[in-house]
Amino acid sequence: MLKYRTLFRTCHIFHPKSLSNDTLKSETTQELLQTMGFVRRSQVGLFQWLPLGLRSLNKLTGAIRNRMDNDGEAIEVSLSAISPRALWQTTGRWNNSELFKFKDSKGKQYCLTATCEEDITDLMKNYITSYKDMPITVYQMTRKYRDEIRPRGGILRGREFLMKDAYSFASNKEDAFASFQKLDDTYNKIFKDLKIPFVSAWADSGDIGGEFSKEFHLIHESGEDTLMNCKHCGDTSTLDMSHSYPEKDGQYLGDVDCKYALTKDHSTLICFYYPKNRQLNWNLASNVMDKDIDLVLRNKSNDHILDVFENDNEDIMFSKILRVMDCRLSSKSNFPDFPLKKYLKNNFGQIDDVSIVDAQENETCGKCEEGSLQSLKSIEVGHIFLLGNKYSKPLSVKFVDKENKNDAFVHMGCYGIGVSRLVGAVAELGRDANGFRWPAIMAPYKLSICTGPNNEENSQRARNIVSDLLNNSSMHLENEILNQFNEKLGIGARIKLSHAMGVPLCVIVGSKNWPDVEIEVRGIRWGKKDLWKKHYEKRCKELEWKCIENEKGPEKHIVPVEHLTEVIDILLMDM
Amino acid sequence: MLKYRTLFRTCHIFHPKSLSNDTLKSETTQELLQTMGFVRRSQVGLFQWLPLGLRSLNKLTGAIRNRMDNDGEAIEVSLSAISPRALWQTTGRWNNSELFKFKDSKGKQYCLTATCEEDITDLMKNYITSYKDMPITVYQMTRKYRDEIRPRGGILRGREFLMKDAYSFASNKEDAFASFQKLDDTYNKIFKDLKIPFVSAWADSGDIGGEFSKEFHLIHESGEDTLMNCKHCGDTSTLDMSHSYPEKDGQYLGDVDCKYALTKDHSTLICFYYPKNRQLNWNLASNVMDKDIDLVLRNKSNDHILDVFENDNEDIMFSKILRVMDCRLSSKSNFPDFPLKKYLKNNFGQIDDVSIVDAQENETCGKCEEGSLQSLKSIEVGHIFLLGNKYSKPLSVKFVDKENKNDAFVHMGCYGIGVSRLVGAVAELGRDANGFRWPAIMAPYKLSICTGPNNEENSQRARNIVSDLLNNSSMHLENEILNQFNEKLGIGARIKLSHAMGVPLCVIVGSKNWPDVEIEVRGIRWGKKDLWKKHYEKRCKELEWKCIENEKGPEKHIVPVEHLTEVIDILLMDM
Repeated sequence: MLKYRTLFRTCHIFHPKSLSNDTLKSETTQELLQTMGFVRRSQVGLFQWLPLGLRSLNKLTGAIRNRMDNDGEAIEVSLSAISPRALWQTTGRWNNSELFKFKDSKGKQYCLTATCEEDITDLMKNYITSYKDMPITVYQMTRKYRDEIRPRGGILRGREFLMKDAYSFASNKEDAFASFQKLDDTYNKIFKDLKIPFVSAWADSGDIGGEFSKEFHLIHESGEDTLMNCKHCGDTSTLDMSHSYPEKDGQYLGDVDCKYALTKDHSTLICFYYPKNRQLNWNLASNVMDKDIDLVLRNKSNDHILDVFENDNEDIMFSKILRVMDCRLSSKSNFPDFPLKKYLKNNFGQIDDVSIVDAQENETCGKCEEGSLQSLKSIEVGHIFLLGNKYSKPLSVKFVDKENKNDAFVHMGCYGIGVSRLVGAVAELGRDANGFRWPAIMAPYKLSICTGPNNEENSQRARNIVSDLLNNSSMHLENEILNQFNEKLGIGARIKLSHAMGVPLCVIVGSKNWPDVEIEVRGIRWGKKDLWKKHYEKRCKELEWKCIENEKGPEKHIVPVEHLTEVIDILLMDM
Repeated sequence: MLKYRTLFRTCHIFHPKSLSNDTLKSETTQELLQTMGFVRRSQVGLFQWLPLGLRSLNKLTGAIRNRMDNDGEAIEVSLSAISPRALWQTTGRWNNSELFKFKDSKGKQYCLTATCEEDITDLMKNYITSYKDMPITVYQMTRKYRDEIRPRGGILRGREFLMKDAYSFASNKEDAFASFQKLDDTYNKIFKDLKIPFVSAWADSGDIGGEFSKEFHLIHESGEDTLMNCKHCGDTSTLDMSHSYPEKDGQYLGDVDCKYALTKDHSTLICFYYPKNRQLNWNLASNVMDKDIDLVLRNKSNDHILDVFENDNEDIMFSKILRVMDCRLSSKSNFPDFPLKKYLKNNFGQIDDVSIVDAQENETCGKCEEGSLQSLKSIEVGHIFLLGNKYSKPLSVKFVDKENKNDAFVHMGCYGIGVSRLVGAVAELGRDANGFRWPAIMAPYKLSICTGPNNEENSQRARNIVSDLLNNSSMHLENEILNQFNEKLGIGARIKLSHAMGVPLCVIVGSKNWPDVEIEVRGIRWGKKDLWKKHYEKRCKELEWKCIENEKGPEKHIVPVEHLTEVIDILLMDM
């Protein structure tokens, strides 16, 4: 089996025949994924996965599956990508303009699944009958579809993408929360396995809805998301969820903006007051009101909202009015006139000193009230939600409880990782002027062997090295060694190609120093644990192992061929 | 890792809580796949894969991938399921009513891929530039979509299905044929790996078109296809391709039917004469004419065809007329009148003694002209095509040849296996009144361990057996042992469930005979090589191994627990 699988074969045609430094440096990460032969864009937002990209995608899939099975204790299923309109109407999500919709030859309407809450709930309804059937978590790794109007960022935001989506079912809130925590823990392990820096942040639940949610992000300047991080307490939140206080109290002397809203029953007028130069944060504002706010009116003008308020209440003179004051304001701020002429002071309420605008860098953290906030650009790669009965109620998933009653709804959670998106995000994270730098767990190959000059003697040496690695390495190198290049490429071009592909280690087998072999390090040691250094310090003499750290070029290691496997195993520990 | 993966966990909820003999016996195979928790139908022709079914599907996928990589030397890619209208219009296939079609939010039209000739050809066009880039074969394992008007047979013919589709590209006919032969060979290995009986048959190329093709079938009475097999020479063909001669020459005295046709340029009238009680076979008829036949007129009446013929020729008195006589006819048959009143005898041609109707059982094989034909009902599971330039020409895939010219089109082949369909077909093949019987390579588990009574002592024994099997078996049993059942099930119910699921071996750990253990055989030895018997005869004494063949119940083996692993390895060899 190894015979072919470790070979590179005719995949050559998908890779660039030559690589200019300018291409490597100037292309965007998403362009370079295409140039290097990881993926090819077939249509706006649609991608064909080429051998190199598919290897990374499949390795990542395997790593996620391993944790989902063993730590998440989740069961894999695989649902259809075609979902009937009726389900989405029941949950009120059919009118989402991002669904690809179509009819079959009989005129029945379907969409391509953008996410599977509806389908999985409908499926599990057939199998969950008793509290004894729960807690249970199921997951799948399937393609999802979103008709984004402006797909951008290549595989970061395609209209078709591979998603790992999991769903938990529990008979009570405590179990539901335990499932949520188990998956939170599993996600942390998944991202730690990738050995890349990530953060998790409490987040707004968005369209998926539900009780609360947490996002997983990779920090990168190219990201579209903004996180607020407190240097003091370490809390990280999405902008939506970030409470903040002004650097100094009551300093705001400028104009005050006011945005009206109504409670859900339209009985109370809410007036949100905040500095005119800031952005009202609807999530924070809504949380102040315990979510008792009619969000349909969110984008309406104040005048319109007043009309609705006057219309829906018999005499607004007796209606309730609540003023909510952002904590940045003080009595010295320049407030606008209050619009209602007739009202009773008695009906006035006021909430002071709350944070209802988007946080800004250097403001004080709302959690610890000590540290100052920094803003971080990031790429969202995972999102977990505690859903409650948002889906189980409309789709009517009940169960027989311990008292033999059958009237409670199942408590759900859902847990997504954008798998193809994560490939794009990690590509972005590791990218430099020489190409990609993948963590070993999702690199297309863990190491390459570049021979030069390209003669039978060197080829034999390379084959012996492969065989030694396969037999003696503890790093599971089967199918992980890139050993065949386009014959026309010289050794320099091979090393450059290996580095540009992002293969973590490049073993150079040349004639000059034989039986010494050189290893060029391309992988990043994100963890900064530098386990290899401890081994190096202990054993460099015994292994006759030299390390050359070069500011201009890559870190190099020189070692006699008989110790090569051992040194490779040590170097891969950090990557 | 083994800790959880070998366990069965809460998958219980997907399996029947009790199994009546009547259910097992009377449900159709496709119903039983649902009852047992392999799949669940969500909509007509659409299926959700449950844990048990997904295990079989994934194991099958792995087996196919192994051969495609190592024997087919094919490179895996993964294309989008969304394909633009423009491509399908270029090849003239957009008007296929079985395509699911839809528009995106910008009004651009797409279909879900039913097969990927268009997309792969369009992709490879970007990478194939020279004859040196070929031969190359790429493949993928992705879902395909066909809006069948009457989906039937469960996963045998879904509207969404998993397909392995491969495509070969070559610079000349010889290389194209060599690729076809290599994939033919690979397919034979794939089906041999499954250890199930199969046949391959030359076939009509249908809508995929191209030069010639071969189908792979499983013989089963429930099948929708008919194959003609010669007992003498062994030739197997689809009905479309089956040449036959009458049992006795010139015996047909009955009425003769005549069907008209025109050559592509409409210059020649063709009259096909054949027995009125038989079905004209358009594929054979068209082959007699070297495919120079206007198939658009195929379903038109004779009168219409004569009108076209008279219209398109200045004076039909001078036009050519060709009579094609089926070999069953003789001068004594009762021919209809010839319709044209004016014609020149000189312009008449005649082809005699060809086979142009569907073959019938007991007729003489057209290949060897000796054996007699039998008809077999079968399920098609694979189809390979030599395509020529059917797709490379309209999509204009050219290459630079050895003479540095750039005007020849790439020679293609395409190769499909209906992977999810194959799961359904093998289910059908192995099905009996006790449930399924899977070959080990695609069984959800290779063996189960049923303990009874269900106490700690027996559980410990079972755990020890699992550990011994994992450490010492040569049959790769990691993740292949079903060891946890719903606690409520007694040992009898467990064995019944294991058998109904189709697990090939069931190890029974009871108290009575301990330390002897019983193995019940559920798998089928399709190969009939009975390798195990040779081992049994040689070693039964040494291993204290008894075999009980029971006409009423399953074959049983009794062996001391210390020899269990060895006996299991031997028994699995044939399954």
